Amino acid sequence: MIILFGVFIRYDEESDTHWVETKAHDNITSDIENDFYFRYPSFQDVHVMIFVGFGFLMTFLKRYSFGAVGFNFLIASFGLQWALLMQGWFHSLDPQTGKIFIGVESLINADFCVAGCLIAYGAVLGKVSPVQLLVMTLFGVTLFAVEEYIILNLLHARDAGGSMVIHTFGGYYGLTISWVLYRPNLHQSKRMQGSVYHSDIFAMIGTLFLWMFWPSFNSAITDHGDGQHRAVINTYLCLASTVLTTVAISSLSQKTGKLDMVHIQNSTLAGGVALGTAAEFMISPYGALIVGFFCGIISTMGYIFISPFLEKTLKIQDTCGIHNLHAMPGVIGGIVGAITAAAASESVYGKQGLINTFDFTGDFKDRTVLTQGGYQAAGMCVSIVFGVVGGAIVGSILKLPIWGDPADENCFDDEVYWEVNNPIFFQTIMFSVDCND
Amino acid sequence: MIILFGVFIRYDEESDTHWVETKAHDNITSDIENDFYFRYPSFQDVHVMIFVGFGFLMTFLKRYSFGAVGFNFLIASFGLQWALLMQGWFHSLDPQTGKIFIGVESLINADFCVAGCLIAYGAVLGKVSPVQLLVMTLFGVTLFAVEEYIILNLLHARDAGGSMVIHTFGGYYGLTISWVLYRPNLHQSKRMQGSVYHSDIFAMIGTLFLWMFWPSFNSAITDHGDGQHRAVINTYLCLASTVLTTVAISSLSQKTGKLDMVHIQNSTLAGGVALGTAAEFMISPYGALIVGFFCGIISTMGYIFISPFLEKTLKIQDTCGIHNLHAMPGVIGGIVGAITAAAASESVYGKQGLINTFDFTGDFKDRTVLTQGGYQAAGMCVSIVFGVVGGAIVGSILKLPIWGDPADENCFDDEVYWEVNNPIFFQTIMFSVDCND
Amino acid sequence: MIILFGVFIRYDEESDTHWVETKAHDNITSDIENDFYFRYPSFQDVHVMIFVGFGFLMTFLKRYSFGAVGFNFLIASFGLQWALLMQGWFHSLDPQTGKIFIGVESLINADFCVAGCLIAYGAVLGKVSPVQLLVMTLFGVTLFAVEEYIILNLLHARDAGGSMVIHTFGGYYGLTISWVLYRPNLHQSKRMQGSVYHSDIFAMIGTLFLWMFWPSFNSAITDHGDGQHRAVINTYLCLASTVLTTVAISSLSQKTGKLDMVHIQNSTLAGGVALGTAAEFMISPYGALIVGFFCGIISTMGYIFISPFLEKTLKIQDTCGIHNLHAMPGVIGGIVGAITAAAASESVYGKQGLINTFDFTGDFKDRTVLTQGGYQAAGMCVSIVFGVVGGAIVGSILKLPIWGDPADENCFDDEVYWEVNNPIFFQTIMFSVDCND
Repeated sequence: MIILFGVFIRYDEESDTHWVETKAHDNITSDIENDFYFRYPSFQDVHVMIFVGFGFLMTFLKRYSFGAVGFNFLIASFGLQWALLMQGWFHSLDPQTGKIFIGVESLINADFCVAGCLIAYGAVLGKVSPVQLLVMTLFGVTLFAVEEYIILNLLHARDAGGSMVIHTFGGYYGLTISWVLYRPNLHQSKRMQGSVYHSDIFAMIGTLFLWMFWPSFNSAITDHGDGQHRAVINTYLCLASTVLTTVAISSLSQKTGKLDMVHIQNSTLAGGVALGTAAEFMISPYGALIVGFFCGIISTMGYIFISPFLEKTLKIQDTCGIHNLHAMPGVIGGIVGAITAAAASESVYGKQGLINTFDFTGDFKDRTVLTQGGYQAAGMCVSIVFGVVGGAIVGSILKLPIWGDPADENCFDDEVYWEVNNPIFFQTIMFSVDCND
Repeated sequence: MIILFGVFIRYDEESDTHWVETKAHDNITSDIENDFYFRYPSFQDVHVMIFVGFGFLMTFLKRYSFGAVGFNFLIASFGLQWALLMQGWFHSLDPQTGKIFIGVESLINADFCVAGCLIAYGAVLGKVSPVQLLVMTLFGVTLFAVEEYIILNLLHARDAGGSMVIHTFGGYYGLTISWVLYRPNLHQSKRMQGSVYHSDIFAMIGTLFLWMFWPSFNSAITDHGDGQHRAVINTYLCLASTVLTTVAISSLSQKTGKLDMVHIQNSTLAGGVALGTAAEFMISPYGALIVGFFCGIISTMGYIFISPFLEKTLKIQDTCGIHNLHAMPGVIGGIVGAITAAAASESVYGKQGLINTFDFTGDFKDRTVLTQGGYQAAGMCVSIVFGVVGGAIVGSILKLPIWGDPADENCFDDEVYWEVNNPIFFQTIMFSVDCND
Repeated sequence: MIILFGVFIRYDEESDTHWVETKAHDNITSDIENDFYFRYPSFQDVHVMIFVGFGFLMTFLKRYSFGAVGFNFLIASFGLQWALLMQGWFHSLDPQTGKIFIGVESLINADFCVAGCLIAYGAVLGKVSPVQLLVMTLFGVTLFAVEEYIILNLLHARDAGGSMVIHTFGGYYGLTISWVLYRPNLHQSKRMQGSVYHSDIFAMIGTLFLWMFWPSFNSAITDHGDGQHRAVINTYLCLASTVLTTVAISSLSQKTGKLDMVHIQNSTLAGGVALGTAAEFMISPYGALIVGFFCGIISTMGYIFISPFLEKTLKIQDTCGIHNLHAMPGVIGGIVGAITAAAASESVYGKQGLINTFDFTGDFKDRTVLTQGGYQAAGMCVSIVFGVVGGAIVGSILKLPIWGDPADENCFDDEVYWEVNNPIFFQTIMFSVDCND
């Protein structure tokens, strides 16, 4: 990795000491116009989502919190280095010098790429070894970079918040791997599944940081100025509306009217996923609310009806329910994006605004919004195909009996991979919980 | 809600794709001058305060953490949508088009508005149903928008961090509701009151995020440039000073000299509340320290002496002690603001600085600082009146027996509204704790 | 303190209402060029690191979490006020008016100064009283300001992220104090040492916030524009690489291949410490990876081999292992900084870039990079000397029997200084854990 970085990676012009000359050359009058100041606060928010958000969201299991936070930390750190290389080769390799020039936008993109793999981790949480996770991330990042190149560069689809390239791909990649690695005897570790009171509160830390910073996620790499501004407003409204429908559906689905923490932790986030493509478009505030409204319903319904169905009929064991949080809302997001793009008009966007938003420049300057809508839809199909086919191949590799995966009765148990201090106290708790089951 | 948004809400010019034309029109040379880059980092900090700060601060109860974080999440998401509408109607309805134009400053204001209702939630925590909370928020946001319109627009008082409009109003609103909903037999749920070791640490997450980001809260909507800069410095110093006096008083108040977690979690924040009005003024660094010094004393004393008095004599059951954290420091903040405004002089502010700080333009260009001080004081009275009268009315509505509120012996217990997994383990803990009582 | 602030501290020109005139004078066209917008997001990240990062990192002990978070809060709040004064006197006292002018950069520097003392707290965690901590902070901040003045102003060494002035100094200061306060009978509180499951997860909150925001720490006070941009990229890469080697070494060091939470919580951060000096230089992305690679190895090895050696042979009881996380990586960072500086060349930096990066202006305009490298090395020696000698003196003061330190058998126990609610439940846990030992 170090050698590859030595050969390929260089600072881009805005993070190089020659910036003082670049600046003079580009007629930039102030350091504040360095891309750093446009993107750094959003980058940090995304960074928090990746490490605290995804990490803590998965701590809900009563005895797999070390694995959730720790392995999330490990594969994210590994993945982002690999992503800088892979995304660099596909997106920003300078043909003359053969170098990749990185700046703050590259770091955000690397975090995005890692997000795809962390989503996939959610499906196999507790059932794989750290070595399997690293292999899964290695291939996942590679597939991601190819798929992203096809969707964003060749098809010229817009996908700033990654409904398609991140969530749809990551969701189906993880689900397919989980399907290949199906464990018929997983019920042997039933005592370890489910949450305890405090682990649910830890998971809420993850939920809230994801929820709060999702506007930054969807706006991090959109156009400077109004693009970032609009993406934030749309995502903020969409997420707020999702919370309300999630709570309503969660309460209505129980005879007692009680709320289920699983829904609150996960389905409240579906709105952000579903606005990943359309956030930068002029979807209008009430459009964002409508998307959020339906996502809350669909995602919560998913936890209640679809997840049990997937497990029983299709043999997909989806620990965190990523199908409801990422895969389905991601597909919805792709569709919403295609429709919104196809419906764009000069009267709403303004002539120059339309060109800026969809980047109708260079080779694409004659593209119409209707064609753009078609390419958006095509992009979504590409991401699903990459997820399913890639997941099937990587899943087969992971099925080889050389990776040290845990036995069925040791799934969801930190003691397999971690030094844990207090087994007796824990056995007492387990005992009482078992009695109660 | 979606229909109302469809009818009224539009993007403002800085988040619209026509921004490229607006920019040319206003002689703006760079995207970085979009209001987004002035306000977005502060907005995200405020957002964290609302959802993580307020949410986790209330998790201190041993068995009401789901309710604290979850219902906080619910009513904040609901409230901010309603707040965008209500504040829009009162503050920024465009008379020609009948539309409300929203940008990042509107989102911050909506978060502020929600803060008022979350403060009120603190007083009734554990004693009301989620439906009651939604009703309370619906009316609270409406009252807030009216009160804010009177104080900021009609009286032209300055209140950037909301000592008056947020904290004083929210505090008295919640206290009055709690007084109307007085439960004489609350001691039946005594076993559920108080904290356990880990719930106190969860609450510290809330405390610290509130404490750290309070400078952003007080500076989020102040003037660009020196206004935001100064508000941050003042709030930072004031809060630091409050921590020291809180620890000192907490230790001195016990015969054994031990510290009480309740004081550390709450009273350390009083300084930020009390500087909500004056933070943007030239109160000077030592002025900020003095305010913090006294707030730490008063707030901690409040927990020791005033809260028991309120409960016993005035029949106000204040779960989180919002009287000590918000109501009293809010009133202090209003007074400090009035005095600082009245004492402002051209020699300290500069001629143009005075006009900028107090916005002496348009209808108010002949106002003197002394008059301004008087109007500040009037603003505080308005916020108290709105809190008390509004709270009494809404409290009476909430007293109707149709809202599904919990029985006295089920207060402070998550099991009434949430699916909870491990009752037997919990009963064991409860048993040991009861033995100890 | 208030009096001292009244006499000395004033707003600087960018946070004063006269800014409107300053701006006109300096040909600044927009409020966005106020230093506030360059630094505030980084400041908030640093602020989170100080209060949440350091505070929660130390919560790993099973029964000292109140003390970890609470006393961290107390001494940080106290220290930053004192630091504003001390750093002001040494660095920014205006000779004409005798005033200190503060802005957002002063606040960051005060947070940095406090970080040195919090590092030292890590070595004595659980073994000292809050009064001792305040004394330690009072002297620590003073020593810090003097040492920083010598290194940055007199020697003109560069140390933006403080490998030398913060980490090396803080580390040796704490270790020496711990050595002076050696407790031969500390084994009497053995039942309180070590962690429980949930306390390790709380500690991960601290780890992750430190890890994520370290790029902000190292870039907070570097040059506007490319300087901040580059420091972020370097630190980000270095930290990612440290995580991988930490996990690898942690797993290899155990016969069972299991991971140890202590390493994950601490050693993963060593890369950020070691790049504190060189982050703003053109160390190149692969250079950053190499530094991170070795730091992960050294720091994890430190926990496995060096910490037990220090305790047994040198009688240094280092609760949090700050020798492995701060002292050693700090020294490495100083050496890396000296080498990188000495190896700088005009071909890599550009003529103007070299001058900007090393600030070769004024009295230092004829300095060569080789001389600069020598001064960097000299700076590191100064920080070690200040740490050891200062620690010895302050340790002797703290050994006086007037500070109310806890007895050997009460170390690492919150009940000495805090009101704790549930002793019986806790005794049950303790009992089960004891059985297991």
